[in-house]
Amino acid sequence: MIDLVLLGTGNVATHLFKAFSASKEVNVVQVYNHSEESLKTFKETTAVTTSLGELAPADVYLLALKDDAIPEVAEKLENCTALVAHTSGAVEMDMLQKCSRRGVFYPLQTFSKEKTLDYSEIPFCLEANSSEDLELLKKMAIEISGKAYEISSAQRKKIHLSAVFVCNFVNHLYAVGEKICRENEIPFEILQPLIKETAAKIQNVSPAEVQTGPAIRNDRTTITAHLEQLNDPENKKIYELLTHAIQKFHGKEL
Amino acid sequence: MIDLVLLGTGNVATHLFKAFSASKEVNVVQVYNHSEESLKTFKETTAVTTSLGELAPADVYLLALKDDAIPEVAEKLENCTALVAHTSGAVEMDMLQKCSRRGVFYPLQTFSKEKTLDYSEIPFCLEANSSEDLELLKKMAIEISGKAYEISSAQRKKIHLSAVFVCNFVNHLYAVGEKICRENEIPFEILQPLIKETAAKIQNVSPAEVQTGPAIRNDRTTITAHLEQLNDPENKKIYELLTHAIQKFHGKEL
Repeated sequence: MIDLVLLGTGNVATHLFKAFSASKEVNVVQVYNHSEESLKTFKETTAVTTSLGELAPADVYLLALKDDAIPEVAEKLENCTALVAHTSGAVEMDMLQKCSRRGVFYPLQTFSKEKTLDYSEIPFCLEANSSEDLELLKKMAIEISGKAYEISSAQRKKIHLSAVFVCNFVNHLYAVGEKICRENEIPFEILQPLIKETAAKIQNVSPAEVQTGPAIRNDRTTITAHLEQLNDPENKKIYELLTHAIQKFHGKEL
Repeated sequence: MIDLVLLGTGNVATHLFKAFSASKEVNVVQVYNHSEESLKTFKETTAVTTSLGELAPADVYLLALKDDAIPEVAEKLENCTALVAHTSGAVEMDMLQKCSRRGVFYPLQTFSKEKTLDYSEIPFCLEANSSEDLELLKKMAIEISGKAYEISSAQRKKIHLSAVFVCNFVNHLYAVGEKICRENEIPFEILQPLIKETAAKIQNVSPAEVQTGPAIRNDRTTITAHLEQLNDPENKKIYELLTHAIQKFHGKEL
């Protein structure tokens, strides 16, 4: 049994807490947050504290905190002999360097408090400063998803960057599509099968190989017609830049 | 029973042929294409022709052709008394104006010849110049998917434009993510659950409401670090523009 203290009560912490609660091998012995209020829902099923001086003994202290808060809290754990790991995509493992045993347990997924997730689908990016602790993190990851990857801090930064493109920026393009629909009294649901299929298509093939649309065909008539229809200058810029980027990427620049 | 002649043998034609072949109410009596070669696979199960002068009698002539070819072929059908409809997102119904009975049967989906599709998930955007023919197109759509929408030519153009954002541009962002992964020896599969979940998330909620990431948080530290990591000038421009667009869209411009 791995005893774990979870530090943080945000989206990632909430989902990890749920996932570990269903596990037999990981026992969340305590949840920490500086504010009493945010601990309310956790209080019902486990011990909680608002004081870093009162953390329970554990095998792992998991820092599911905002990037800025990670070094601050880690500093206060400096005499800790247990494994201290954070869950951030962007923070280097060595920001925990005052902890003798340190690691990263980064779940690569988009979390909203409201939305139920299939935890078995979450890839975990793991890193530790000893092979024993890497094994410990693997055990924790496998308890949740079975998808554990050993990823260096340098690689993790690149994954985090890629995630902005394939998640945050993609979601904004969905929002643009929704706005165009609304403005023209078209139900957004009409686009949803297309959105789903576009994501499903590249689960087995490379997206570079299945690019479609007026840009890659260099269909100037359609491109010009589309640009004329776009009133929002920001959306026009997005259309122009992405059309150009697709053509350049595929060596079709004219 | 609706007798249908299918004109075209591309991705859309191939998928519609498959879908209608499984239907009890629609009978594809013939497939036309100008090239013999492309008719090969259709020949095994239905009549085919390379001559517009030899089209079989039918209730509906469905033009699943490239946008440019639609008016050309329609002109040759000008004395036809059956319903003539095209499957394009971008071509106005009145490009078929020489046909007395005209319509649009636009399946809003991304089609690849290789990929199996769940036809029941395809929304059909329908238009006709008489209510009787609109009903006829509805019957055809319902045979395939059950999702039939009455959409004007003006609205269809906007849907087509939205589809470029949520499908073609989104796919390019997937390709950028894949490239960053490959360059850093990270398996692309690690991003796929995130891609799937990002698309799944907005099947029930508005994408504008679930925007996440450094742009909407105005997390300058992460934004600066990401821009420093991007070597490709095109990807840097995409990052800057979409970050700015997200902030503007959400009224967070600073």
